Amino acid sequence: MRYSLALLGGGLLVASQTASATWLFPSAKNFIYIVPDGFGPASQTMARDYVSLLRNGENPKRPVSYQLPADKLVIGNVRTHASDNLITDSAASATAFGCGVKTYNNAIAVDDNGQPVGSILEAAKLKGLSTGLVVTSTINHATPACYAAHVAHRNSYEKIAEHEIGYSHPLGPMVDILLGGGRCYFKPKSDPTSCRKDDVDLFGFAKKKGYRVMQDRAAFDELKKGTSKAADLPYIGLFNDDQMMYEIDRSRKPEQEPSLLEMVETALNSLERATKWPWNKGYFLMIEASRIDHAGHANDPAAHVQDIIMYNDVMQFVKEWIDKHPDTVMMSAADHECGGLTLNGFNPLPLKSVSMSIEEVERLWKAYNGTDRRDYLAQTILPGYGLAGLSNSDIDSILAKNNLGSDLTARLSKKAGVNWSTGGHTASDITLYGYGNGWRGNDLRSSMAGNWDNTELPKYIEGALDLKMSDVTKKLRAAGSAWVGKRSFDGPDHVHKH
Amino acid sequence: MRYSLALLGGGLLVASQTASATWLFPSAKNFIYIVPDGFGPASQTMARDYVSLLRNGENPKRPVSYQLPADKLVIGNVRTHASDNLITDSAASATAFGCGVKTYNNAIAVDDNGQPVGSILEAAKLKGLSTGLVVTSTINHATPACYAAHVAHRNSYEKIAEHEIGYSHPLGPMVDILLGGGRCYFKPKSDPTSCRKDDVDLFGFAKKKGYRVMQDRAAFDELKKGTSKAADLPYIGLFNDDQMMYEIDRSRKPEQEPSLLEMVETALNSLERATKWPWNKGYFLMIEASRIDHAGHANDPAAHVQDIIMYNDVMQFVKEWIDKHPDTVMMSAADHECGGLTLNGFNPLPLKSVSMSIEEVERLWKAYNGTDRRDYLAQTILPGYGLAGLSNSDIDSILAKNNLGSDLTARLSKKAGVNWSTGGHTASDITLYGYGNGWRGNDLRSSMAGNWDNTELPKYIEGALDLKMSDVTKKLRAAGSAWVGKRSFDGPDHVHKH
Repeated sequence: MRYSLALLGGGLLVASQTASATWLFPSAKNFIYIVPDGFGPASQTMARDYVSLLRNGENPKRPVSYQLPADKLVIGNVRTHASDNLITDSAASATAFGCGVKTYNNAIAVDDNGQPVGSILEAAKLKGLSTGLVVTSTINHATPACYAAHVAHRNSYEKIAEHEIGYSHPLGPMVDILLGGGRCYFKPKSDPTSCRKDDVDLFGFAKKKGYRVMQDRAAFDELKKGTSKAADLPYIGLFNDDQMMYEIDRSRKPEQEPSLLEMVETALNSLERATKWPWNKGYFLMIEASRIDHAGHANDPAAHVQDIIMYNDVMQFVKEWIDKHPDTVMMSAADHECGGLTLNGFNPLPLKSVSMSIEEVERLWKAYNGTDRRDYLAQTILPGYGLAGLSNSDIDSILAKNNLGSDLTARLSKKAGVNWSTGGHTASDITLYGYGNGWRGNDLRSSMAGNWDNTELPKYIEGALDLKMSDVTKKLRAAGSAWVGKRSFDGPDHVHKH
Repeated sequence: MRYSLALLGGGLLVASQTASATWLFPSAKNFIYIVPDGFGPASQTMARDYVSLLRNGENPKRPVSYQLPADKLVIGNVRTHASDNLITDSAASATAFGCGVKTYNNAIAVDDNGQPVGSILEAAKLKGLSTGLVVTSTINHATPACYAAHVAHRNSYEKIAEHEIGYSHPLGPMVDILLGGGRCYFKPKSDPTSCRKDDVDLFGFAKKKGYRVMQDRAAFDELKKGTSKAADLPYIGLFNDDQMMYEIDRSRKPEQEPSLLEMVETALNSLERATKWPWNKGYFLMIEASRIDHAGHANDPAAHVQDIIMYNDVMQFVKEWIDKHPDTVMMSAADHECGGLTLNGFNPLPLKSVSMSIEEVERLWKAYNGTDRRDYLAQTILPGYGLAGLSNSDIDSILAKNNLGSDLTARLSKKAGVNWSTGGHTASDITLYGYGNGWRGNDLRSSMAGNWDNTELPKYIEGALDLKMSDVTKKLRAAGSAWVGKRSFDGPDHVHKH
């Protein structure tokens, strides 16, 4: 990591602790921004204590001091409100930390007036850096969307997909690597697995633009962790028509989809190869552990914990990556808390025997076409969800009601001594993580530590990479604003959904 | 603030971010440690958004970016489990951050084997520094107790009071300033307002040892903010037989008790005057905003917010104090979250019309001896608690039940869109704050930023003040351990109470 003159000068080394706007920017070649979506302070405590117990005797009455990888990178916390609500959704929050602009819930990289605002990824691309989005949600979900699409409402999924691949983005393709789910939005409606209402073939468009297109794990494996010629930029790999699987389910079927960690390793190797010479510009990569949030919405503690552990594995990998590539800086923060999780009678050990998400439970239950539903529930579903040994009357009670999902998540949460106050988001601050290991790595922590509004985070990246988001905004607005669509949209309120 | 050679040498400036034990200690003359008891991440968000709305238009649909004083001093977070439970109580936690030792819930500065462990305050005293404890709980409550008492169970209130004033502490009086509540424990049982079971007269003992003894606000005011000769060390001022009042109640009756801020200002002026010459040793002061926790246990959102605002006022005062006294360093962290607070439908504005705590409501309700309880409820109690305008059927429902307190707190919490999952504590990490403004103030933040086990915090103070807690432990153990009492105690489980 190189430092700017301002910092080297030394005379400007005043205590910046008291003013939000006086970050002393380290100058970096590459920046990695990691979003654990829907991840509050209690989420990390729950995952840490779970792992710690498994590794240290499994006795909740004898806990020992322990850290997960992300814990070693804590530098502060982040305020998250939207422009129109104290509780943000992922769209308003990602517009804040992706573009530096406070906006309304549901907005995808547009401001309160519905005008497009340039993202840090687009600013990087315009400056000649390589770019990537690696997520486990659909690639056109709110968080990744805010880096390369501009629409008035997050539910405009088809339009977001078009922007992300450059089909109808005024500035053309902005993203060199797209990895995640949401395959169905890239196929014309003539394809039976499409979820488009038109004949636009975005995979076909991507190929024309030079993208390698991957639609399954086998194609992904050809990239050989990003080291193969097949992993040259640009490429798009979407491995599920819908969201990618929760890690708790994927880990049982690794042949179906790559993990977030595998995608991150591949993307970083690709980006590094594409930018390796000293005269090359660097890269900006956004990574999202997307489904921590979905497990929060579902109040599903085991799926939540396993996706958080995967997030921590990614944090560890990126830390080690930066140790080997000291021209790279990382920052990580959730977009908001989700589920109103509290650890009020806490013992995460019962989560150990859970082998599937509640999403998978519901899929299996719906698909079951045998004759003995009671037996299937008792012998397969309940043990798979960590609830073996329920009494006959409990089983009767579950069968009598028509809410298997919420019934089982409530039972498991109670068993683990955790509480969820909502199926939506909450307003609590979330934790800020950061890492850089240059010749004065300690000063990076000093320059980033503190409590920040989410809009301040991309301004740090702007400084570190010497970018200007306002230049992108000007170019986007030169194309008018009709292309972003209208703010009103007949969809659910996502603060209370996703 | 002076820096140690290790830091000045520069060559040792490695990235300490990845290892818990490599703090680079600034060398300070004085250290102030501030405990907002029972204060989780959502607590600060709630107070901040409340103040921000009051100052910026009172429209929860148009929030603006805002920081409370503590927000400007965020540097990380803290893990809090006890040795025997993933959820800590105030006793185990204060033994951790007061003495650096992980212990069982209910332990007051003794380890898992019931052996006394020296505190950072006692280490300071033995090294010749001046010391103080300033709290709003009873002075013999768990948090202050762990700095100057050693008992096997926190409920040994009489014994804790004896230790704190030096009556039965093996090393004699350790604390130069004691300010708070708990007056009744210092009076012999012959006094009708005593809560002792014996004739020990601790106020009398204190006088003999040279302490100025204050038992009301008028006596406190004679200290003239610590600038009067009357404020020479040592002194003890206890202003309530029980806990001091919640700030929301005290602010209506300021003639009855000083505020936490007034006590802090007085104590700091006294300590500064006692140690002002360069050749003097400095001081260690522990400040506790104790009743944030009690409001959490009561699930009382308005009392919680007002005590948090007072905590933030103290943080602002201490920050400005350090700007004027750069040989002083401050660190602040809660002992644990309390109440399982989440902000799930959040709008704190309804808290504006609340003018009393639920404790005061219950006191008034119990004391009412008029003839029209319904009218008293409707005309006095409900408006005072921010619930004016309830329907007749609501009022009937409240009167019909015998749980006025929990009924009203639930109604107010719902109105403010907040949820409490417990009347006890939870396991979530809590936020770490710190401040120092020496010639390289930024490096202080760098050296303190991160995620720490609560036992690591006093080790930072040890380094900064060049103290040794182990020396105290040796001296304490030379007195045997029978004096700390037995671990078993017929009392409530305080994880689930206080």
